[in-house]
Amino acid sequence: MLENLPFWPHLTVDQQQYLVRSAGFREYRKGQQLYDSSDECLGMIVVESGVIRTYIVSPEGREITLFKLGQGESCVLSVACVLSEIRFETQIMAAEDARLRIVPTAVFDKLFRENVYVREFAYETATRRFSAVMHVMQQMIFAGLDQRLAGFLLEQYEESGSPEIVMTQEEIAGEINSAREVVARSVRQFARDGLVSTGRGRIRILDPHGLQELAENQTR
Amino acid sequence: MLENLPFWPHLTVDQQQYLVRSAGFREYRKGQQLYDSSDECLGMIVVESGVIRTYIVSPEGREITLFKLGQGESCVLSVACVLSEIRFETQIMAAEDARLRIVPTAVFDKLFRENVYVREFAYETATRRFSAVMHVMQQMIFAGLDQRLAGFLLEQYEESGSPEIVMTQEEIAGEINSAREVVARSVRQFARDGLVSTGRGRIRILDPHGLQELAENQTR
Repeated sequence: MLENLPFWPHLTVDQQQYLVRSAGFREYRKGQQLYDSSDECLGMIVVESGVIRTYIVSPEGREITLFKLGQGESCVLSVACVLSEIRFETQIMAAEDARLRIVPTAVFDKLFRENVYVREFAYETATRRFSAVMHVMQQMIFAGLDQRLAGFLLEQYEESGSPEIVMTQEEIAGEINSAREVVARSVRQFARDGLVSTGRGRIRILDPHGLQELAENQTR
Repeated sequence: MLENLPFWPHLTVDQQQYLVRSAGFREYRKGQQLYDSSDECLGMIVVESGVIRTYIVSPEGREITLFKLGQGESCVLSVACVLSEIRFETQIMAAEDARLRIVPTAVFDKLFRENVYVREFAYETATRRFSAVMHVMQQMIFAGLDQRLAGFLLEQYEESGSPEIVMTQEEIAGEINSAREVVARSVRQFARDGLVSTGRGRIRILDPHGLQELAENQTR
């Protein structure tokens, strides 16, 4: 599995042997927590089998999944101490029984300093995961707004009996206590999801049931 | 300025000349918007002078600054189309009059594909900025909880007349409709900020004025 890491062919033979020799195996049962960012760094994780899940706990105490990793995928959040200034709090648990290869922090740190391809890998992986995390967080931040907007559009529909709502995004923002660019962002997302279509100064409801679901739920 | 980019010494002479020849200059007045992620990629930005500010607009329409960049600093969010799957929405404006060097997307893309040091630079920069962004977002998500917790601690203080609150974090979570690990996270942050100190099953208020401010404001 380590041989499939993208930086593997760029390691010297010595570095390859060092990596293989020092990477340990660990097994976790489904539901078992394997990392909490308030602990020490665990090391770099490569999933040999099973699935692990990274999550944060919402203010209301719900677990919000940030991303899942399966066979052959790597996690570098658990080696945050090597990457500069990652300071945000996550937890990782086994979503299914999982067998992991764990590269100890000190070993990863040494290869990271010696080899630019290891650094490229670490930062690329971090960029990809962070991008997913930010997407989830942005949804959390805007969940309340999406809910209000969906509710408002349905109200207008009910009042007028027409699925076509003739209002500018500026006017809608005023009604739901937001700002034009925020409403524009949500409307774009609604349109991508097939809930509405948009024209100049008007919004047409395509899927009232989808909007209803959104209006009733705190998260999408 | 381009000569100070960390990958500069690792470029071939041809690549260096290509970079210098194709990077344009642009000037922006304070307050002018220079990038919106719903637009096309702008290219990689290097700040020659002045300050630029990356922000998102909150659901209530407030601009939330994610990070600022000054002389010699680079922005790769504006070249998100080259980095794989960055899909989150930001805007950039000039926080002061600014003179920027802009490496066109196609030029950056070519160097990115040719040179591992350019990739390392791009992903490292993205990791650093994303980390800052996630920190801000986490604060936004937890602002309401921090506010409730600060208010609750002050109430207990007023009721008992003692700055020492003898309750477990589990009990506090029950009172403010949250979960133990979420309260633990906020209490850790409060302790780092010098607002409280903690012991087993108890929290001591050190700075009631600071807590009061927090309880009254939506954001920290």
